[in-house]
Amino acid sequence: MLQDFQICIRRFLFHFLLSIVYTLQNGSYRMKKFDLNAIYALRRASLATWMAQEGIGALMFQDTEGMRTPNVRYFTGHPMDAMFVLTVNGSSILCPWDINLANIKAHVDKIIPYTDFGRTPIQALKGLLKILKVPQNSKIEIPSNTPYPQFLHYVDELADMQIICREKGSMTVVDSMRTVKDDYEIYCIKKAAAIGDKIIDIIEKDIRNGSIKTETDVALLIEKELRKAGCERTGFDTLAAGPSRSWGIHCFPGYTDGPWGTQGLSILDFGVVWEGYTSDTTLTVAKGPLTQEQKEQLELVEKAYKESLKFYKPGCKVSEAAIKADEVFASKKRIMPHSLGHSYGLECHEFPVMRSIGDNTTILLPGVVETCEPGLYDPKIGGCRLENDVLITDDGHEILTHSRIIKID
Amino acid sequence: MLQDFQICIRRFLFHFLLSIVYTLQNGSYRMKKFDLNAIYALRRASLATWMAQEGIGALMFQDTEGMRTPNVRYFTGHPMDAMFVLTVNGSSILCPWDINLANIKAHVDKIIPYTDFGRTPIQALKGLLKILKVPQNSKIEIPSNTPYPQFLHYVDELADMQIICREKGSMTVVDSMRTVKDDYEIYCIKKAAAIGDKIIDIIEKDIRNGSIKTETDVALLIEKELRKAGCERTGFDTLAAGPSRSWGIHCFPGYTDGPWGTQGLSILDFGVVWEGYTSDTTLTVAKGPLTQEQKEQLELVEKAYKESLKFYKPGCKVSEAAIKADEVFASKKRIMPHSLGHSYGLECHEFPVMRSIGDNTTILLPGVVETCEPGLYDPKIGGCRLENDVLITDDGHEILTHSRIIKID
Repeated sequence: MLQDFQICIRRFLFHFLLSIVYTLQNGSYRMKKFDLNAIYALRRASLATWMAQEGIGALMFQDTEGMRTPNVRYFTGHPMDAMFVLTVNGSSILCPWDINLANIKAHVDKIIPYTDFGRTPIQALKGLLKILKVPQNSKIEIPSNTPYPQFLHYVDELADMQIICREKGSMTVVDSMRTVKDDYEIYCIKKAAAIGDKIIDIIEKDIRNGSIKTETDVALLIEKELRKAGCERTGFDTLAAGPSRSWGIHCFPGYTDGPWGTQGLSILDFGVVWEGYTSDTTLTVAKGPLTQEQKEQLELVEKAYKESLKFYKPGCKVSEAAIKADEVFASKKRIMPHSLGHSYGLECHEFPVMRSIGDNTTILLPGVVETCEPGLYDPKIGGCRLENDVLITDDGHEILTHSRIIKID
Repeated sequence: MLQDFQICIRRFLFHFLLSIVYTLQNGSYRMKKFDLNAIYALRRASLATWMAQEGIGALMFQDTEGMRTPNVRYFTGHPMDAMFVLTVNGSSILCPWDINLANIKAHVDKIIPYTDFGRTPIQALKGLLKILKVPQNSKIEIPSNTPYPQFLHYVDELADMQIICREKGSMTVVDSMRTVKDDYEIYCIKKAAAIGDKIIDIIEKDIRNGSIKTETDVALLIEKELRKAGCERTGFDTLAAGPSRSWGIHCFPGYTDGPWGTQGLSILDFGVVWEGYTSDTTLTVAKGPLTQEQKEQLELVEKAYKESLKFYKPGCKVSEAAIKADEVFASKKRIMPHSLGHSYGLECHEFPVMRSIGDNTTILLPGVVETCEPGLYDPKIGGCRLENDVLITDDGHEILTHSRIIKID
């Protein structure tokens, strides 16, 4: 309850700050499409407000090989390898690996190349704090995914500061900021969804006219079309599993040159990324003749999808929809081996997760996006999953993508 | 020096153990092609020997979202999400997310599904140690990339054990085991290299006959051909940068539907994965008419490649080849903005790195594979990189891939 309340307060604060900044800048809250400088500045201001409450002098996020986080992009727009430091006064520096790219993409107070610090993160943090004139003995929060031995080095090397690395600190706060999407994020997410939908339509046409024959055919069609539409990449490795492999939740390898869309059940799980924001959809191709068992499995998944969607609305606990889906499956003695859904955005898996166990308190809020993806898998008859992206609105939900079970006689 | 000596000792020990196991199993050191059970058992035996020296009772590796490591695959063959525990007695358990996949792919003493432990890593480790009958108060080493707050939980929850998480511990030892490739690994690496080479030949043919026009064309050709050849996936996101974008070391996005192989300098950086092992090659297409500056840049990169290759041999320090490349570039007042090369295998970036600064002691040994990839980048004239994979042999090296600068009038 306390957590939900905190999220509400944070959200209110965020939009209150938003309204002030936009009123000052544009004379009204109505955005021009879109003032990215203002958007990123506002996110940083919101985080700095929290830092002040916590007595944090500065914090750091780092997006590098082995320690990936989209938080650097969330606060600056810079999409790749970089360190980002923010002070409680709201001053920020981006320290990118590729300075040319940062000059094009980053919206931040200052950019200083990583090479200036011998390309080591600790020296970079030390140097950036100095440039930002962070006073000695300040609390400096480093990300909660910092490995323990690395943490010890930070403590040693920045002995004149108090290094903080904690579970429910800056990463958790940013996770909850990122949970409720702002207008620009919803714009990007809808754009990705629309492009993904067009690709699904092409796939249905091509599977019906026989021009898609293999897992590779369908996976490469997606790669080609998303780039034509101006997307950056797929949101995750495309999973295309033909009838002989669709029993796996996540098939390995992701796709092969084996048949797809042939008789039986084929699964396709993919996302496309628009300005950092992914979609996440799964469709099933059910090509007949099907067995009675296969038909029943399809019906059950469709029923679980429809029934659980009723609980995608503000005020519902994230567990409620998942419990409903479990009930539908249990009525036919079947079990779904994964969660019903998850949030997404800059990452394909974000918080909160729609699962029946574990989290019994988190409540859906307007501006949250969640997948709804019931599925059943059977080594004998194959698998079936139906996944779409759902935006929680003030009075219910909006289904953003239109993936489906494609039935072919 | 001490480190090199340790690597030598370890390598000797490894091959000594190898010879014993194979002599016992097959009556000779000559491998049947390939006894995977024996290969993985041997790797585990080698690691257990080190654990005995260190007084470690058991260790754990974990390959999960946000904490990826191929060490689980290195010791079991299982390619995806899982926890792996090994005791000093050499007993091992794999705890996979996908039990069906593990039953097909894993070579390990025992397999227990992750769902048995409520899908939380700490409960899984606790449960596995119990099943393995690891005595109370044993030293249990967890990976050095364990986040600090997570480390504290391990310490709390496994209060009857001594939890160890250190920088130069199990991860470092396995890194150095993985540095010197065994026969099976070299077989996989050569297989990936040969498939990559065939794809490069197709690309050269298709760029000359005009059927490749865009970055997407060439990237998807790779995806298609590698799957046809039975590879798992690309080793990393393919980077295809046409003349307008080749100034970037790593272009963003990886590829677009913009032109590639058209007049000027285009770069293509890609790898294909055979049974977990990647290749890593970069070719440049130089389509005329070129400016004098562009021609000079190509010549300089080719010269740096040729000259630095002379230092790819056993006994050379990893810095020597890189210093040579730097010299070649400095003679024309140019600077390469990245390292000359790096090792690779189950990951596209492994140790040691061929760089002129930082590491002045590590020495190349037979069985090490390294890329050689000099490059120059200029926002005005574009970039050029030439990258091939090189195996250090007893008396020099073997160039495994045959990427090149493709010059078209």
